[in-house]
Amino acid sequence: MGPLEGLKVLDLTRVLAGPYCTMILADLGADVIKVEMPVKGDDSRHFGPYQKGESAYFMSLNRNKRSIVLDLKSPEGKATLKALLLKMDVVVENFRPGTMEKLGFGYEDIKAYHPGIIYAASSGFGHTGPYSQRPAYDGVVQAMGGIMSITGQEGGKPTRVGPSVGDINAGMFTAIGILAALNHRNKTGVGQKVDVAMLDSQVAILENAIARYVVTGEVPGPAGNKHASIVPFEPFETADGEIMIAAGNDNLWRLFCQVAGLETLAEDPRFATNPKRLEHYKALKPLIDEVILKRTTAEWQRLLDDAGVPNGPINSVDKVIVNEQVLAREMIVEVEHPVAGRLKMPGIPIKLSATPGEIHSPAPTLGQHTEEVLKEFLGD
Amino acid sequence: MGPLEGLKVLDLTRVLAGPYCTMILADLGADVIKVEMPVKGDDSRHFGPYQKGESAYFMSLNRNKRSIVLDLKSPEGKATLKALLLKMDVVVENFRPGTMEKLGFGYEDIKAYHPGIIYAASSGFGHTGPYSQRPAYDGVVQAMGGIMSITGQEGGKPTRVGPSVGDINAGMFTAIGILAALNHRNKTGVGQKVDVAMLDSQVAILENAIARYVVTGEVPGPAGNKHASIVPFEPFETADGEIMIAAGNDNLWRLFCQVAGLETLAEDPRFATNPKRLEHYKALKPLIDEVILKRTTAEWQRLLDDAGVPNGPINSVDKVIVNEQVLAREMIVEVEHPVAGRLKMPGIPIKLSATPGEIHSPAPTLGQHTEEVLKEFLGD
Repeated sequence: MGPLEGLKVLDLTRVLAGPYCTMILADLGADVIKVEMPVKGDDSRHFGPYQKGESAYFMSLNRNKRSIVLDLKSPEGKATLKALLLKMDVVVENFRPGTMEKLGFGYEDIKAYHPGIIYAASSGFGHTGPYSQRPAYDGVVQAMGGIMSITGQEGGKPTRVGPSVGDINAGMFTAIGILAALNHRNKTGVGQKVDVAMLDSQVAILENAIARYVVTGEVPGPAGNKHASIVPFEPFETADGEIMIAAGNDNLWRLFCQVAGLETLAEDPRFATNPKRLEHYKALKPLIDEVILKRTTAEWQRLLDDAGVPNGPINSVDKVIVNEQVLAREMIVEVEHPVAGRLKMPGIPIKLSATPGEIHSPAPTLGQHTEEVLKEFLGD
Repeated sequence: MGPLEGLKVLDLTRVLAGPYCTMILADLGADVIKVEMPVKGDDSRHFGPYQKGESAYFMSLNRNKRSIVLDLKSPEGKATLKALLLKMDVVVENFRPGTMEKLGFGYEDIKAYHPGIIYAASSGFGHTGPYSQRPAYDGVVQAMGGIMSITGQEGGKPTRVGPSVGDINAGMFTAIGILAALNHRNKTGVGQKVDVAMLDSQVAILENAIARYVVTGEVPGPAGNKHASIVPFEPFETADGEIMIAAGNDNLWRLFCQVAGLETLAEDPRFATNPKRLEHYKALKPLIDEVILKRTTAEWQRLLDDAGVPNGPINSVDKVIVNEQVLAREMIVEVEHPVAGRLKMPGIPIKLSATPGEIHSPAPTLGQHTEEVLKEFLGD
């Protein structure tokens, strides 16, 4: 019962950027038919760790999809693919540019017999430009796209972002492109090609780093954990861990001082306004440090929450998946897989009131739906 | 000429998550009317650095939009807002939950007179759950959502991701939600509410961290810069900087050895397969280090590119904005602002063949289009 119910998506993607995109579509109700190569299937079926022999990685990215096996190099496989494509609204692939053309299924090939198709391609460097044919991995585009250069401890080394945001953001932009193209098609009947590059996606999320550089001429380095222009706005060590405290304005600063028993600081003219606190940061920081160390993270959380001062613990993954807000929002769901049993994974981050979408089925086993899908779309 | 041409969006958002969402819609052709408070406008108009007095931050997030000024607390402002809403397809806001209700413009209020409206809300913790009313900043949700705990140097401290991915990913999921809801509305005429939380969005992009933890019971720490299971796949120091080398399989390993003059390593049984290289990492790493140090990053890039070994420099922002692929993909554009003059900013990462979208106008000055918009939508 999602907003994309009835949308038919042929999914030729593997591993991450593409499957993340098609997972979003499937979660929102699209009928996603994942085409896998015989025997081996999606490479990520072979990425550990495994639960009862099934890849947890694969299962967490391919729920709600059906799997069919086709050998795209054989004439029979090609014929079946073409017949299926004619029944589809969208096809998504994340091969290296040129691969689909070699198989005979480039956008221009498909468009010739199905002008309404939305053909979405996610690739490392995109389908145009001098690097187009180069292979890329998440680590490479995180390095080249600038995000590593501004992530890391202050004065420290450029640092890779933990999750593969090179792939994930490309998958998200591909989903946006497909849905925007769908709006155009709903009105005109005309399909088109959606070309999203992992590198481009990194540039698009650099936020103020580009603006700051072009205006000031200063090359931004690793941003560290503290806010560049607001004080206090950083993690502090507690008796048993760390807590992020974000007193975003002078009012929150005074509230914070009350909660922390630092009323004298609130009255100190050196710290009265944010520009002042920024100026006297070196004097202020140790005074706050000393107090925060005296209580546990949970105690500070309770005190600050009661006072309305933005704060949060630096949760490790074990804490994230039991957090009461995360659970209340159904952002951790448990999916029952026929082989692997129950597996926890992230829920759907887009909450819709009328057609909320749902996680209706676990990731498919390899070729689980070949017969069913071929019968359904191509008859007997 | 974007795929969303004709889509009318009333934009009540400020600073980042919301404006990033509506920028995506505007880049793809939607008519985005940004409603700002009198005198002050969007808070981010006051974020430095400035170019001729105009905020570069604001300008890079609000291109392609029109600005009108309305005092939403006055009866006249409320009446105008209501009249405008009746002409809109979408309204987007990123206030703290409850704010719109207090103003008399909660989803249920608007729905009563405009059931077709798509009402999108982006907030820190979402419109439901025990933390719903709490304030949040990017730093807080990066801390609570787990991404900090898996980002950082190996064995080092949890590290905030440089760009505000807590906001940006929420903005992207909100855009996806709006476009999915639009598809449903195009078919049924029925609108709905789209509720996206920054915290939820962080959980949704944790990738394999959750899968790894739930299967193995091991809490993942900062991931470091090297790949967990592929060798070599990390940055190496060169004569003048660093280069990311990603030899993702045994074939690429042998190619890399040829290029690097390390043929003896390619023949060494300790390093013949990826599992072997992982096992003998400590012996292998210094042997590669020694060789890579002998040439500059640019020299290695050329050699590795010629051989087809995935690699990339760790580009700082000054390098990113002049990279030939980035420029070929029009991922850095220059926009002429009537006051600030020319400013470089990221281009559109979604490349569409039929309706590509465009950057047709700079960010508006405060209230630049009030008269024009009111005349256009509400007559004289």
